Amino acid sequence: MTYVRNAWYVAAWAHELRDELPLGVRVLDEPIVIWRNGRGDLAAFEDYCLHRLARLSLGRCEGERLRCMYHGWLYDSTGHVVEIPGQARVPGGARLRTYPVTERHSWLWVWMGDHSCADEKLIPPVVGFDRAEPESVYAHGQLDYAAEARLVNDNLLDLSHVSFLHAASFRMSDVWAREPSKITPLERGLRSERWIRGEGTLGELGTSDLVDTYFCYEMYVPGVLMMTVHTYPVGTAQALKSQPPDLSRPPGQFTTQAITPVTSKTARYFYTMGRRRRGSETTYDMTVTDQAFAEDKMMIEAQQQNIDSAPARRFIPTAADQASVLFKRLVETMARAEGSVEASTDAQCTPVHP
Amino acid sequence: MTYVRNAWYVAAWAHELRDELPLGVRVLDEPIVIWRNGRGDLAAFEDYCLHRLARLSLGRCEGERLRCMYHGWLYDSTGHVVEIPGQARVPGGARLRTYPVTERHSWLWVWMGDHSCADEKLIPPVVGFDRAEPESVYAHGQLDYAAEARLVNDNLLDLSHVSFLHAASFRMSDVWAREPSKITPLERGLRSERWIRGEGTLGELGTSDLVDTYFCYEMYVPGVLMMTVHTYPVGTAQALKSQPPDLSRPPGQFTTQAITPVTSKTARYFYTMGRRRRGSETTYDMTVTDQAFAEDKMMIEAQQQNIDSAPARRFIPTAADQASVLFKRLVETMARAEGSVEASTDAQCTPVHP
Amino acid sequence: MTYVRNAWYVAAWAHELRDELPLGVRVLDEPIVIWRNGRGDLAAFEDYCLHRLARLSLGRCEGERLRCMYHGWLYDSTGHVVEIPGQARVPGGARLRTYPVTERHSWLWVWMGDHSCADEKLIPPVVGFDRAEPESVYAHGQLDYAAEARLVNDNLLDLSHVSFLHAASFRMSDVWAREPSKITPLERGLRSERWIRGEGTLGELGTSDLVDTYFCYEMYVPGVLMMTVHTYPVGTAQALKSQPPDLSRPPGQFTTQAITPVTSKTARYFYTMGRRRRGSETTYDMTVTDQAFAEDKMMIEAQQQNIDSAPARRFIPTAADQASVLFKRLVETMARAEGSVEASTDAQCTPVHP
Repeated sequence: MTYVRNAWYVAAWAHELRDELPLGVRVLDEPIVIWRNGRGDLAAFEDYCLHRLARLSLGRCEGERLRCMYHGWLYDSTGHVVEIPGQARVPGGARLRTYPVTERHSWLWVWMGDHSCADEKLIPPVVGFDRAEPESVYAHGQLDYAAEARLVNDNLLDLSHVSFLHAASFRMSDVWAREPSKITPLERGLRSERWIRGEGTLGELGTSDLVDTYFCYEMYVPGVLMMTVHTYPVGTAQALKSQPPDLSRPPGQFTTQAITPVTSKTARYFYTMGRRRRGSETTYDMTVTDQAFAEDKMMIEAQQQNIDSAPARRFIPTAADQASVLFKRLVETMARAEGSVEASTDAQCTPVHP
Repeated sequence: MTYVRNAWYVAAWAHELRDELPLGVRVLDEPIVIWRNGRGDLAAFEDYCLHRLARLSLGRCEGERLRCMYHGWLYDSTGHVVEIPGQARVPGGARLRTYPVTERHSWLWVWMGDHSCADEKLIPPVVGFDRAEPESVYAHGQLDYAAEARLVNDNLLDLSHVSFLHAASFRMSDVWAREPSKITPLERGLRSERWIRGEGTLGELGTSDLVDTYFCYEMYVPGVLMMTVHTYPVGTAQALKSQPPDLSRPPGQFTTQAITPVTSKTARYFYTMGRRRRGSETTYDMTVTDQAFAEDKMMIEAQQQNIDSAPARRFIPTAADQASVLFKRLVETMARAEGSVEASTDAQCTPVHP
Repeated sequence: MTYVRNAWYVAAWAHELRDELPLGVRVLDEPIVIWRNGRGDLAAFEDYCLHRLARLSLGRCEGERLRCMYHGWLYDSTGHVVEIPGQARVPGGARLRTYPVTERHSWLWVWMGDHSCADEKLIPPVVGFDRAEPESVYAHGQLDYAAEARLVNDNLLDLSHVSFLHAASFRMSDVWAREPSKITPLERGLRSERWIRGEGTLGELGTSDLVDTYFCYEMYVPGVLMMTVHTYPVGTAQALKSQPPDLSRPPGQFTTQAITPVTSKTARYFYTMGRRRRGSETTYDMTVTDQAFAEDKMMIEAQQQNIDSAPARRFIPTAADQASVLFKRLVETMARAEGSVEASTDAQCTPVHP
């Protein structure tokens, strides 16, 4: 798998990390333990005790230190061994590999590359369900995929599948597949936007109220998506001559999603859904979303099995794959640039997001 | 695994294929989608959409066409792409690999080899439960084996195991193992036949009525068996001087079975059992058959595990293995002939069944 | 995996072997069938019928012989074929590989190496729950590990983990980790012994009665442990100037444990616990033991996964690993000596236990 290492990956939900209990995750096939010390600071280590490779995520937080609970080795927040039970001397060089880690938008993010490039400004500009807006309702969830993260990214980058795969859930016509979106490259991603005219609202079952909808999403390396959905009376798109509406208005719906490669053939899919509150609603109704995401999972996992059965076969790109191809090239370019970092002394991080 | 490709393989029960729902199967480790178009014609394709390898068996029949339900590519009955949503031009050469497919004897059969040799006369002369005979009762079933198809074939080709493995189910004495059957080669298989004298009827629990039974089965490449069981009063075999009885009389029991290689280490075992109706019976009682087939499955799957643990070990042939050895040689000869087909310009199909 | 072959391995509990039913086990990744003939003698064969590799453990004991229940081959106690159904001649050289096998201390032991070295005096001097002592209570159990046997051995050889991993079950302080044991090499193993002063009794939940405890265990190749626990009033260790107490007195508790490599990545852990009866007890209360052994299993199986993820990483030895390192060297030395046995004509068994 080709993945960019100099990027923030979503490792877990912030609420998964509880007091004194370190959390074990796997990102890019590397086992990582994330923990919070007594001062509230986050740290992330490789999840291997140096002694005999026990899992530190089965360990215990002791104030500002993390103890392996197999034979008791104790580590400080920088990954240095500070105590070996039964032995006075601690080897000076013994230190765990660490990962930059931070919390934002309800998620814990780890940086998988060169520490000197780990700029928090590179965290994609998404929103989580941690912003308490009284006029909105939220829901969140996650799915574990038996498929490579890249295939889930591709799914999100080519929404022409909405017309077919989600015919019974999102119930949109074949307009998604017929008409192209407008694709704009970004420094570490791309933007895709479009009008859908005179259809029901996305995710509304049995609605007879038709609207013009402006869909806009941005997809960032390594695989983080922010989509907003603005609805208007039918005719708005035509009145605007298909130009974008005023996007500074709060969206009617939004979703933030992250696809994290766990191993080369598995991924974890994290998502937050949000919508303007209607009536006395207290939460986002996930009925349609759950059905649609199950459709994606069934199709993509079967696709992965087919790819494994016929690894030499190539995809055939189409007009609808434009965003997918663009994103793939961006990832390959960034990954290649990182390769040269390792090979030369003139090390450079990939360009930062503005 | 050595398997003949120029042969009809049982892929599924005919009743598994329902209107508008394509059916995904796997034969010789190839994923295949079988579907029926609006005119009732069958078609079979490799189960990979050319676009991004999605499963066509998750698709939808649309009249005479099959649509991939990931991004909507549409195929005609010959495997040609006829529509790519969002793109005016369809690449001319884009075509799926197809398989000859037909329905007979309650089964769907696919031809895995050279299309020009796919003669339906090569379908083995077996019968299914689709022939409605008021004087008979039927049952059918299938088992998935965690074992190579060849080992299940071997089981059927050496019925000496009935005396041991099925001692508690079929309850025959050790006569099966003591006395040889008469084996006759056929063009694409072999016939095995024998008298069993003065035993209870096969599969009858607790019977005290003894009979002379004439067992006759034919086993065809790739692994299709038709067995008939004729019973007579004790003494008939001796009166006939061990010669065959009049086999044109309808059998008291019959069974048709097919073993299809799914992968190199798994197989699907399809079977139909039939018997002359007794009293007001409406179906064939599978109690004894289910027990016996579970005994086979337990023994053969353990045998496969042993083979996997010691792949270099060889079998030791015995007198009882005569049919098994003959069938193995036939398969190897036919497979080798197919190899030369590919290598030479003087292509020849394997000889057709008379 | 490096294992000594000239050693007795615990294959099963003696009570697992029942009349006429052969027992299939796996040791050092070799499938073995153990059976008892009509005279009560044990025999052990490779679990492959010579005919077609069926499992003999699915067979049937017939007096002094074992019959394969696939096609009926019959074997005598020495592994020779004595009958092939349907065939008059039995090939003279056809013989199964056999293993020396014996019963002792509630267990069935098989010898995996050179038969001429299979001296029963090499069975480690442990005790089972088969000794009926009215003043004691017993319990026994087993766990299947998804980890290499070596990692379970290491766990037992470095009890400093008791202070951390078993903090919630055995509830001992960090004294196990702080103070070293006294390690003494034995010819085919090692002894580890120590005082623990003024703690609760091992495995006693919520006890407020403190004692001085003398722990002594011997660990033998291939992985058999015998531990005794003697308790005394607080102050005894000091009065004895830390010298061992009189160990000829029966212990308050004892445990016998065996770790058998099943495959290169799995092991079976057998254990007997015994204690002096208190009041009207009829069995050893396994509550604390079950919790502690589950803690070990969780930690060690995760450790195995980490090792599989990073096979090139090395352990860092510490003071607490002394017994583990010593035992590892002993196994390697013995295994190397066996290698030279095979390569030279001057064959020698590894030295026998005194």
